[in-house]
Amino acid sequence: MKSSGIICKKIEETHRKKTALQHLSQAGINRLLRSISKALQQQSAAIIKANQKDLAKMDKGSPLYDRLLLNESRINAIANSILKVVKLEDPTNKSLVKKTLENGLMLEKITAPLGVVAAIFESRPNVVADIATLCIKSRNACVLKGSKDADHTNRAIVKIIHDVLKELHLSPALVYLLPPDREVVQILFNATRHIDVIIPRGSNGLIEYVRQNSRVPVIETGAGVCHTYIHEAADIPMAVRIVVNAKTQRPSVCNALDTILVDKVIAARFLEALKPAFEEKNVVIHADSGSYKLLKGYPQLKKAVPEDFNREFLSLSCAIKLIGGPEEALRHIAEHGTRHSEAIVTNDLRTASRFLQEVDAAAVYHNASTRFTDGEEFGLGAEVGISTQKLHARGPFALEKLVTEKWVLRGNGQIR
Amino acid sequence: MKSSGIICKKIEETHRKKTALQHLSQAGINRLLRSISKALQQQSAAIIKANQKDLAKMDKGSPLYDRLLLNESRINAIANSILKVVKLEDPTNKSLVKKTLENGLMLEKITAPLGVVAAIFESRPNVVADIATLCIKSRNACVLKGSKDADHTNRAIVKIIHDVLKELHLSPALVYLLPPDREVVQILFNATRHIDVIIPRGSNGLIEYVRQNSRVPVIETGAGVCHTYIHEAADIPMAVRIVVNAKTQRPSVCNALDTILVDKVIAARFLEALKPAFEEKNVVIHADSGSYKLLKGYPQLKKAVPEDFNREFLSLSCAIKLIGGPEEALRHIAEHGTRHSEAIVTNDLRTASRFLQEVDAAAVYHNASTRFTDGEEFGLGAEVGISTQKLHARGPFALEKLVTEKWVLRGNGQIR
Repeated sequence: MKSSGIICKKIEETHRKKTALQHLSQAGINRLLRSISKALQQQSAAIIKANQKDLAKMDKGSPLYDRLLLNESRINAIANSILKVVKLEDPTNKSLVKKTLENGLMLEKITAPLGVVAAIFESRPNVVADIATLCIKSRNACVLKGSKDADHTNRAIVKIIHDVLKELHLSPALVYLLPPDREVVQILFNATRHIDVIIPRGSNGLIEYVRQNSRVPVIETGAGVCHTYIHEAADIPMAVRIVVNAKTQRPSVCNALDTILVDKVIAARFLEALKPAFEEKNVVIHADSGSYKLLKGYPQLKKAVPEDFNREFLSLSCAIKLIGGPEEALRHIAEHGTRHSEAIVTNDLRTASRFLQEVDAAAVYHNASTRFTDGEEFGLGAEVGISTQKLHARGPFALEKLVTEKWVLRGNGQIR
Repeated sequence: MKSSGIICKKIEETHRKKTALQHLSQAGINRLLRSISKALQQQSAAIIKANQKDLAKMDKGSPLYDRLLLNESRINAIANSILKVVKLEDPTNKSLVKKTLENGLMLEKITAPLGVVAAIFESRPNVVADIATLCIKSRNACVLKGSKDADHTNRAIVKIIHDVLKELHLSPALVYLLPPDREVVQILFNATRHIDVIIPRGSNGLIEYVRQNSRVPVIETGAGVCHTYIHEAADIPMAVRIVVNAKTQRPSVCNALDTILVDKVIAARFLEALKPAFEEKNVVIHADSGSYKLLKGYPQLKKAVPEDFNREFLSLSCAIKLIGGPEEALRHIAEHGTRHSEAIVTNDLRTASRFLQEVDAAAVYHNASTRFTDGEEFGLGAEVGISTQKLHARGPFALEKLVTEKWVLRGNGQIR
């Protein structure tokens, strides 16, 4: 590993250069992004060659192999997603409050770049381009720490970005890729004067590690243990459609369904209708004792253990529990949910409205699949992740939240 | 100290009861606040009696004595500030985004209470009433940890709040005053499931301790090393007026001036005009070598040591440094500032505008005193403190930021 002194100096340089992006016009920012998009496509051969080196070190049977692999079409997808970011509105310099105080002082609250954004992430090599792009668009400099597995690929991508920056007379320090060594993160955790926020992207283990150890503020994107509550006044075919979609459309993601809560009075009818639909999709059911009886004969039926109701399955498995009504559903979700996405299916508007108000989560749904919790779906563009924290960013964490606020006061000699 | 098991149970109860305030109408919330205000005034004798017990344990010569003292008129001031909060707009349930997606899903982003807000604070007994009031207005439950010094007083105030809550059929658990023992904060730091944010109010030592140790998110209100930069194109009488106000109007607060940066070319004239004004107010000047020469003969003149340029003086002292122009001013502020409040005095609009854009601080001023950085001055009402962090709340941290966001989606069976 490079000596930590050199790395600290480089981070300081990134911090010092950060205002350069603030001086560009929005057209200038977009020109830079389009040039990066084009350069990545034109130099795809160099990226693929570097990627081959990374792949050569990885077991072909590993699930990480496919995640790491880049080819022409995946590089095109990265380049295209940069063009989508070009089209998004500039998140900086938005006027949030503007008024003249009685003493004549003109008060304005505007959005401003955070400054230097650090991201720590695991294998997928598109992340380097995604984060650098969102940071440039929001006029932030960035410090990136990828994994050893993807280091050749990450370096090839960042080299192309650096060449474009230099061509446009901008400092390559605006996008600084750290060495992939684990010890480097300790430097980030203590760089409170030079880094404004750290975003961990990857496993829950990584996120928890960053949260526990960083002195620099962290924006977390956490796990989702997502519930769908089938209220006694639910439309059963709709409930089945929603639950099947939420569980099976893409089971490996955080907004997929984990636990179904079913009102006892409707359970027999609902589960009867659910069985064939889940069977067709090969869903494994971890059933509490009540639902276990009603599901008898279902091919992939297991008795739920208490821990199943805290699990984020990330697979074609789910837990089912029969309950006594809204009160119990709210209690169960408060105790077992991770404040990500929670849904109720009912035709009773009063119950729905109570659920939407009382459930404490980033996204709450009435009569829809939790799978919609996503930056693109919400119209925010590419997201850095889904934030399950309550401060600063909640839910899809996208471009619009890569900013801070700043109070600007213009006077002509006002004193107190 | 009560066993930590009992305290954990009490915090859990506060967490469980928190939705009660969400069910009240805005009129109901205001009725509750007005009742608290009235009860505090009516029972001022009980508060004063408790306060006497606290005062009896304190050295009369201590500067803390006056801060701890409550009398009829100070209790009236507390009661009146509650009535001011009544008049503020409800910060919850504000619609921030509202649109119907192509698939018919109705998407809304609203403000929602944070949930349970914990505050840790030192002596001043008005803080208990201030924080409880702001939390009730924003429909948050709160957990309060005061100092041992003020415990009788704090308990008397909270007892009155509890009586009002009970009278209105609300749980006293909504405002939970912890025992004043230091060990209690460890319980708060780890209560990630039941407390949503911790706000430390007090010394920098306290704030730093909370920031380093809490696993619950913290909103910091930090120190202010505030600069005023006198640019070569400054109007000298205005510059003197601003600097005198920023330094002397209330030197003990965080938005008071600490360091004056002066362009060399204007230094002789500016300092000549400043001298009599500062002399009249008994200001002690820590001067760099250049300004030291120009200030010769000033009665309270000291040679600045490097550490003086990182000091938050909180007294009638300041540091002065001569510099070579805007570039150097920006560099000095980036290195020595604490991102609180920074000002430039100049009649050159281009330089002013560059300063306002590039200086990375919660509040940036052109031709005005930094003393205006304050929730009341900005029209936000009573503030919890001045946030010097960049996430969630920046600058005056008041009622409007005691909320989180929540995405609410209403559908009729939408799936992906």
